[in-house]
Amino acid sequence: MFDFALQKEIGLIGVFDSGIGGLTVFKELHGALPEIDIIYLGDTARVPYGTKSKETVIRYSTEAAKFLVKRGVDLIVIACNTSSALAIDSLRKNFDIPVIGVIEAGAKRACSLTRTEKIGVIGTQATVKSGAYREEIRKMIPGAQVISLACPLFVPLAEEGWTDNNIAREIAELYLADMKKARIDTLILGCTHYPLLKKTIGKVMGRNVKLVDSAQSVADGIKNMLGKDTKLKVSEKAQKPGKIPARKHGTVLQFYVTDSTERFREVGSRFLGYKIRNPEIVDITGE
Amino acid sequence: MFDFALQKEIGLIGVFDSGIGGLTVFKELHGALPEIDIIYLGDTARVPYGTKSKETVIRYSTEAAKFLVKRGVDLIVIACNTSSALAIDSLRKNFDIPVIGVIEAGAKRACSLTRTEKIGVIGTQATVKSGAYREEIRKMIPGAQVISLACPLFVPLAEEGWTDNNIAREIAELYLADMKKARIDTLILGCTHYPLLKKTIGKVMGRNVKLVDSAQSVADGIKNMLGKDTKLKVSEKAQKPGKIPARKHGTVLQFYVTDSTERFREVGSRFLGYKIRNPEIVDITGE
Repeated sequence: MFDFALQKEIGLIGVFDSGIGGLTVFKELHGALPEIDIIYLGDTARVPYGTKSKETVIRYSTEAAKFLVKRGVDLIVIACNTSSALAIDSLRKNFDIPVIGVIEAGAKRACSLTRTEKIGVIGTQATVKSGAYREEIRKMIPGAQVISLACPLFVPLAEEGWTDNNIAREIAELYLADMKKARIDTLILGCTHYPLLKKTIGKVMGRNVKLVDSAQSVADGIKNMLGKDTKLKVSEKAQKPGKIPARKHGTVLQFYVTDSTERFREVGSRFLGYKIRNPEIVDITGE
Repeated sequence: MFDFALQKEIGLIGVFDSGIGGLTVFKELHGALPEIDIIYLGDTARVPYGTKSKETVIRYSTEAAKFLVKRGVDLIVIACNTSSALAIDSLRKNFDIPVIGVIEAGAKRACSLTRTEKIGVIGTQATVKSGAYREEIRKMIPGAQVISLACPLFVPLAEEGWTDNNIAREIAELYLADMKKARIDTLILGCTHYPLLKKTIGKVMGRNVKLVDSAQSVADGIKNMLGKDTKLKVSEKAQKPGKIPARKHGTVLQFYVTDSTERFREVGSRFLGYKIRNPEIVDITGE
């Protein structure tokens, strides 16, 4: 999954996303590595990335990565599937610290689970159009059949909190009808918002289809990698998940957004399952 | 509705929106004034505005207005409800050409239609939070009862083209349940995407509730205003609606976007009912 060897100590991880959805990755990562300092950047002034062009997504992702690097992170995690699909090569070329995306992790997990080698991928329009999951899957299983589908309404459903009502069920049924017919045995939830709809998607697809949550997969992947090859520089202020200290420099967890902390706090707290305190608004344009 | 007198000739109108939705305004305006040149700017690299903060919406709107002014427009129409709600005062202060928004026009039309003085407004979170429709309505009917509601799923529904299926109907019923109980007699569709859902919203609200399409209202308002006070500088190349000439300088109608012309062409053509040719990608940041 991660080709590079990590030589140095990892003391601070930077996670970025187009907005709020990447908090699902943040949550899994913090759960897997509670002793590591993490900063999170949500580009809420320009969210979503999933309907935008490759050039624009690369430009926005580069600005986000520069922002994190300036704050001293040792490792960048791209929590956004769209950005992982379109911008990871560019970021790896332009930054000399490891850059890890959710797509490789999700694809690897799906390949380890599938028996029939028929794998489904759902995500944003940009992620699906990029073919990035297909490409990663076929590196591991060259003959795999990959069926991809964009489900644009899943994001606003998750943000509205309508995750297991009738409407969510009907939308999932309409979107996933062809996916069911294709008789896949593994379905990648290729957008950070989709794990919130896991229950509904699972009911629609049936118990024979395994769901891959890329947030979980990337967190597990990083944990394994760090455990093996790299020293962890454990924070003195390490906290248990769920305890977010008040914001100050040198703190364990910090949230940055490019706009509107109010909405980020409100929707983000629903995503994390606990309250986000004091996210800081920053301007990353022209970074 | 429009307090200023227009002294000079109007030869070129600039319309801007956060993205694609403003094409509903463009369409009405072009239908009402087929002899006038119009340029349209969709800020598709940063769409949507409706979930963003006032400061950010003002910054983006100012950049859009500067772009249009540089291209020589005599009048700016803010097609985006969110931008009209949050940024119109700032634009009027900073630009010396008339700036017309959709909110005043929609509010005026609603006030002329209501009998019970109970008016509903649906729009984005930012528009609803701003209270701009309520404020405009109460300038005309001080005792009016205004019930406002954000319907975030209506935008992706319209973009998906799911405008009169079961799902659209159920979502409309869930959102509008309290609006029905409030016994309003007039409902403002306070977001450029919502007119695409007019049929479904109309069925849910019932025939006793009049729907106000602010796109239509602003086009009618501008037509009246221009007819009365201002000379129209009729384009020599005037075209009938539906005929968009190939893009070149000095053409009658021109579309600019900040990202991804492909999606703009595809979804925008559905909005207009005819094909958009040759939208041009521009960078307006730092204008």
